[in-house]
Amino acid sequence: MPKKKQLWSSRFSEAVDPAVRKFTSSLSFDKRLALYDIQGSLAHARMLGACAILTRRDVAAIERGLARVRREIETGRFEWSPDDEDVHVAIERHATLIMPGYTHLQVAQPVTFGHHLLAYVAMLERDYERLAECRRRVNRLPLGAAALAGTGFAIDRERVARELGFDGVAENSLDAVSDRDFAIEFCACASLVMVHLSRLAEELVLWASPRFGFVRLPDRYCTGSSIMPQKKNPDVPELVRGKSGRVFGSLVALLAIMKGQPLAYNKDNQEDKEPLFDAAATVKSSLGVFAGLIADLVPVPRAMRAAALEGHATATDLADYLVRKGVPFRDAHEAVARAVREAERAGVDLAQLPFSKLRSFSPKIGRDVKGILTLEGSVAARNHIGGTAPAQVRQAIARARSRLPRARKRLAKSK
Amino acid sequence: MPKKKQLWSSRFSEAVDPAVRKFTSSLSFDKRLALYDIQGSLAHARMLGACAILTRRDVAAIERGLARVRREIETGRFEWSPDDEDVHVAIERHATLIMPGYTHLQVAQPVTFGHHLLAYVAMLERDYERLAECRRRVNRLPLGAAALAGTGFAIDRERVARELGFDGVAENSLDAVSDRDFAIEFCACASLVMVHLSRLAEELVLWASPRFGFVRLPDRYCTGSSIMPQKKNPDVPELVRGKSGRVFGSLVALLAIMKGQPLAYNKDNQEDKEPLFDAAATVKSSLGVFAGLIADLVPVPRAMRAAALEGHATATDLADYLVRKGVPFRDAHEAVARAVREAERAGVDLAQLPFSKLRSFSPKIGRDVKGILTLEGSVAARNHIGGTAPAQVRQAIARARSRLPRARKRLAKSK
Amino acid sequence: MPKKKQLWSSRFSEAVDPAVRKFTSSLSFDKRLALYDIQGSLAHARMLGACAILTRRDVAAIERGLARVRREIETGRFEWSPDDEDVHVAIERHATLIMPGYTHLQVAQPVTFGHHLLAYVAMLERDYERLAECRRRVNRLPLGAAALAGTGFAIDRERVARELGFDGVAENSLDAVSDRDFAIEFCACASLVMVHLSRLAEELVLWASPRFGFVRLPDRYCTGSSIMPQKKNPDVPELVRGKSGRVFGSLVALLAIMKGQPLAYNKDNQEDKEPLFDAAATVKSSLGVFAGLIADLVPVPRAMRAAALEGHATATDLADYLVRKGVPFRDAHEAVARAVREAERAGVDLAQLPFSKLRSFSPKIGRDVKGILTLEGSVAARNHIGGTAPAQVRQAIARARSRLPRARKRLAKSK
Amino acid sequence: MPKKKQLWSSRFSEAVDPAVRKFTSSLSFDKRLALYDIQGSLAHARMLGACAILTRRDVAAIERGLARVRREIETGRFEWSPDDEDVHVAIERHATLIMPGYTHLQVAQPVTFGHHLLAYVAMLERDYERLAECRRRVNRLPLGAAALAGTGFAIDRERVARELGFDGVAENSLDAVSDRDFAIEFCACASLVMVHLSRLAEELVLWASPRFGFVRLPDRYCTGSSIMPQKKNPDVPELVRGKSGRVFGSLVALLAIMKGQPLAYNKDNQEDKEPLFDAAATVKSSLGVFAGLIADLVPVPRAMRAAALEGHATATDLADYLVRKGVPFRDAHEAVARAVREAERAGVDLAQLPFSKLRSFSPKIGRDVKGILTLEGSVAARNHIGGTAPAQVRQAIARARSRLPRARKRLAKSK
Repeated sequence: MPKKKQLWSSRFSEAVDPAVRKFTSSLSFDKRLALYDIQGSLAHARMLGACAILTRRDVAAIERGLARVRREIETGRFEWSPDDEDVHVAIERHATLIMPGYTHLQVAQPVTFGHHLLAYVAMLERDYERLAECRRRVNRLPLGAAALAGTGFAIDRERVARELGFDGVAENSLDAVSDRDFAIEFCACASLVMVHLSRLAEELVLWASPRFGFVRLPDRYCTGSSIMPQKKNPDVPELVRGKSGRVFGSLVALLAIMKGQPLAYNKDNQEDKEPLFDAAATVKSSLGVFAGLIADLVPVPRAMRAAALEGHATATDLADYLVRKGVPFRDAHEAVARAVREAERAGVDLAQLPFSKLRSFSPKIGRDVKGILTLEGSVAARNHIGGTAPAQVRQAIARARSRLPRARKRLAKSK
Repeated sequence: MPKKKQLWSSRFSEAVDPAVRKFTSSLSFDKRLALYDIQGSLAHARMLGACAILTRRDVAAIERGLARVRREIETGRFEWSPDDEDVHVAIERHATLIMPGYTHLQVAQPVTFGHHLLAYVAMLERDYERLAECRRRVNRLPLGAAALAGTGFAIDRERVARELGFDGVAENSLDAVSDRDFAIEFCACASLVMVHLSRLAEELVLWASPRFGFVRLPDRYCTGSSIMPQKKNPDVPELVRGKSGRVFGSLVALLAIMKGQPLAYNKDNQEDKEPLFDAAATVKSSLGVFAGLIADLVPVPRAMRAAALEGHATATDLADYLVRKGVPFRDAHEAVARAVREAERAGVDLAQLPFSKLRSFSPKIGRDVKGILTLEGSVAARNHIGGTAPAQVRQAIARARSRLPRARKRLAKSK
Repeated sequence: MPKKKQLWSSRFSEAVDPAVRKFTSSLSFDKRLALYDIQGSLAHARMLGACAILTRRDVAAIERGLARVRREIETGRFEWSPDDEDVHVAIERHATLIMPGYTHLQVAQPVTFGHHLLAYVAMLERDYERLAECRRRVNRLPLGAAALAGTGFAIDRERVARELGFDGVAENSLDAVSDRDFAIEFCACASLVMVHLSRLAEELVLWASPRFGFVRLPDRYCTGSSIMPQKKNPDVPELVRGKSGRVFGSLVALLAIMKGQPLAYNKDNQEDKEPLFDAAATVKSSLGVFAGLIADLVPVPRAMRAAALEGHATATDLADYLVRKGVPFRDAHEAVARAVREAERAGVDLAQLPFSKLRSFSPKIGRDVKGILTLEGSVAARNHIGGTAPAQVRQAIARARSRLPRARKRLAKSK
Repeated sequence: MPKKKQLWSSRFSEAVDPAVRKFTSSLSFDKRLALYDIQGSLAHARMLGACAILTRRDVAAIERGLARVRREIETGRFEWSPDDEDVHVAIERHATLIMPGYTHLQVAQPVTFGHHLLAYVAMLERDYERLAECRRRVNRLPLGAAALAGTGFAIDRERVARELGFDGVAENSLDAVSDRDFAIEFCACASLVMVHLSRLAEELVLWASPRFGFVRLPDRYCTGSSIMPQKKNPDVPELVRGKSGRVFGSLVALLAIMKGQPLAYNKDNQEDKEPLFDAAATVKSSLGVFAGLIADLVPVPRAMRAAALEGHATATDLADYLVRKGVPFRDAHEAVARAVREAERAGVDLAQLPFSKLRSFSPKIGRDVKGILTLEGSVAARNHIGGTAPAQVRQAIARARSRLPRARKRLAKSK
């Protein structure tokens, strides 16, 4: 699609990704319900035929009519996250890459980059689980509830449920008509997905800032500025971060709409569709652009290492070392705190203090302390399930990867 | 507890329930975390002993110390909904009681009171399912994550998890430290519970209003007015309705707090406890007072029946009758609409129009129409799973009751 | 516009109002910003010409070009509430009409219908004030802030501000670029408007329910049901009530988006437009349909009076009467409470108890009590600013009406 | 107050500020309403005396009783932001200090530190204005509304209003009883204050991170870690950032509580106090700790300058230079973008490219370009109201300072 050149395009070496362009534009849902309606009407008509409420001829006529309507509607299809496998490869390639782990945005302890990214795998796996449970719970056939009390015609609800792929029938007609749990629960799940993506987004923005420089984002996920010729802005993560607010808003809207409504249907409920559809589209597109962006993220090991070396990141390791030598933790903590103040005074990292200086803070410090104070020594020591040691990270990736095929199979089945 | 008499007490025949008095006062959570802390510390100490990181003697000393601290804390225990069985009995006794089913607060079709209450059973069963799934998902041991990167000591996380009754260990130390999904997911589940209770609350307030008069609330769930001597106010349902807003607020607070935070821990997270504890307490106490109130609710069949007879509630039945006689639905609908206008002009309910008058709207109307237009005929016709026919309602109660023991067993196990 | 007849139209005596039809469909904002952009560009170009940064010829060429673009855009205009005066007339015609005042949806004391509606006048006047203050505060020219630091060209910001009708210039370029207070404050004001309209909506739904029957809504503000031929549903108030949730959602979205953003501009802010525009459109259309609906609302005095007579509405008047006769308030309250219990036992309203019976509750009750116990006596007694006495209500309407022209003048000026 | 030493205290050179310690603990409001109640009761009693509804003796007795109750309550007083003047001094001392202005957290253009802080002055001035308007609007006497319809006693509402310092009387008794606008509007204002503080908090956390190092926070506003001996965490800004979520939650709770309530009072409204009080306390304490923290913030000019020199911050100045030499903006932008790519290739800042190299991108570049490319040249060029030039910043501080005394006077009057 030959587009008019953007003012800032000379700064960039590749074009903006079409998915990114689409992401920044709004999505329309006008036709989606129509197609589901047709599918439901077909199953309904066939059941009425089987129950002899409609003649075979009526059913055939209805089938022909609906097929024609369907053809007249042009469908628009989305594909979920292009290639999850890529993301796992990206994480694995980096299992031994060391970066500073932060708390309070102050250097805390060294961690591996793979370990850091696996934290998001854990979050997204919980999201997947929640959405799968939500789907199973809400996937009940409401047909037969009629206006609110059920229908006087002798219909076969289970048959329609089976034909349309529902997991069962709604057990109460008043509930079926007035319930909007499905919309609220979905938006709550979607809000949690967005919380997670917004945290990753915040980190990507920080890491891409020149002050950190931990990663380079692919040009096609960035935009420039029409005023400032030097800019390369991490628009995609920022927009995902902003869109989390939008999904929270949809959740709040639905809660407020449903609160305090008497049974059964009230017109208030017409307001349920826009927030629900908007939340679904936002989560889908946000996951989509991030799947591509993370797979092509370029880490900058030198910058990560430099940052890990400037905040006395192995101070805890020194304290643990002293504890293992029999020093009570409180005393060990205090000795290391004094060593850190000395290092700050000298303008060096704790690990760079000369041995004699270090030893002055505790006679228990021996020559073997140097291995303890390296970044590699620190991460290797955390060697248990959930720890940041490279061996553990590799095992965690293997476990996560083994869970993927099952998830995919379930997804395929539920389509 | 002999209390000072309220100004309005002469209007009432029983005293306010102590649980209600407690419900209106705020709850304190000061001691709750302490007890869980002690339990966790004990398991941790024992594991460190088993791993030979602490000596047997140290472990014994720690156990003694913690036991003493525990005794010093006075525990405050809550009991979940006193007797769920009562509620089911209440629903069953009324399976044949007919009331008007409303949509848009206009009379729609007659339904049975039991069928109406079963709609809330369906909502609360979804709530139970959600909370059970939430618990299973979040019930992971974080211990071992240490500051954020894992610990350098050779600990046995699975052992501690088993001893404390966790369903597993948190798989990633950074996630374990920074995740607050457990708080957000719980508050989302709690918000849905409150949506459901607030809808029941709205209906109770309406039904207790003199204009409806469908139910009488037990005096002990009401309060009077210090100005107006005649008042008996449905305070409890109104307060529950109001408290739904409070739980939504907690959910929003947590979403906003977590949004866009870089890993791992930041002090923002200290703000997680108050909304979480407050939501838990609010849901617990709201369920508690409603369990008692619903069990003792007194329906007023005469008022329900009178209301069901004033809104042409069986108009749909007449349309369906004509359809079964071969009249196209559109024509049947229009004929009945004209009959309704005639009934309004005459100041009577549709069912009260003389046969000759009725027949003037469609020659297909025969003498058998009278059975169709009664409330009993209307509800009996809706005889399928989820329908309002008394037979169906009884079966639905039986199914709901059979699910109770399993739920109780799971609850008991999870305590 | 000859539309296909709705299935339910035979039940109705007038067609659905076109404004109502529009209200239920979604609104598009695609062209709105474009027109404001053009206006801004014109003023900017003229200023640059006056500062000799552009030649006179350039300015003329730009003016021609923009005028052509403008013509190519078709404008869509909204009109604020058609005729506020009508609403005041509606309130006045009813200043002496008595209805039950409720608290807790239990009959409290009689009030006049005009007094009740004036409560909403008070709420909407606060809304008007808030929106006017918001406009004055946010109506600052941001131009000149450029990317974030200001511009290096010697521009005249005050001139542009004057020409475009701004109340001043933004005082800080970083703030001008990153501030979204205008969107948040507007959505907060809009949320309050919707809180007020949703309360009126709730009352209209109640009042239009057959159980109350206090008002008749014009047919053109209602819809029927495609299943139930007898239905006339108060769709418009219900939809307004539901739309309040939508506006709250927009407010929450904006707060979450802006929270914790570093200065100056971040792409998150692109998410500001949809919630803002949506909130503005929702408030505008909701006010519009209510202005028409309230003006044509038909009160049913007989139903209001019957309801006011059934809840011992003048019990407080009796207590006050005893107080004026020297009975301590606590004793008066208790005596009346006992009288109310007696009336309930007898199945009559307090006012219908025979004099001898009444007197048995307090010897201070004299023959003059009858005037006290009438609805007219009760409302007439509340004769102070803010009270429900007809004389006070008429004065309050006069004061509200006198404030209207000023408000209109300010509105006209600010357009 | 000699406290037990914190585990991490050896790392710090000053103790944690007592206000900070208080800030992290929760606040109790138990006694606040009581004092206002007493004040109101006194005025009420005196008015009743003046209207001869109470005897002079009764009034005196009531006065004595209330005075005794008041003495029994110990008052807890807060002081608003200790010394606003300090903050302005802090901003002025730095008007010439240059730092990088960011958009998208990428270096955009140089700005002065004073200019940056003035953006927050602009935000907080809007907050002040909003709160002042809110107070004036809600400061209406509700007394006299009684239960909902007004009172039958001949009271003088204006007199009580004057005596208690209200700006007027509530105009409608139903509105006075049921309105909670004051709580919602205050929480909306409070939410905006917290949005602003949370943005400043985010910047302080970034600036205090070793990767930025732009500022040093006073030790007394930080805490350490009980695990990691080297940590100095910016707890106060993080907690303020987190507390913004809490205030949003209160706003949402109140909106949801009030939505759809029929007039007049319902028990739902009892839920109004906790969110309102909590929001007030949160805003007050957050402003308080920030006032102290900002006044003692230590900027690190060297780090700011280094950061401003690494992102081609003067690229826009070069483009503007070319435009002034007659190059169309689009061509100028493209030439500079190419120069930036060359500088990146060479690993230097744009300003460090040799003249010959620079000139190769446009023949219009002359020797005078060097002054344009310096940080000082860039900020000095933005010399208009709202621009970042030191002269403008000094004038803006003077204007802000001149507005302070008026604000203080109004505050004092309103107490």
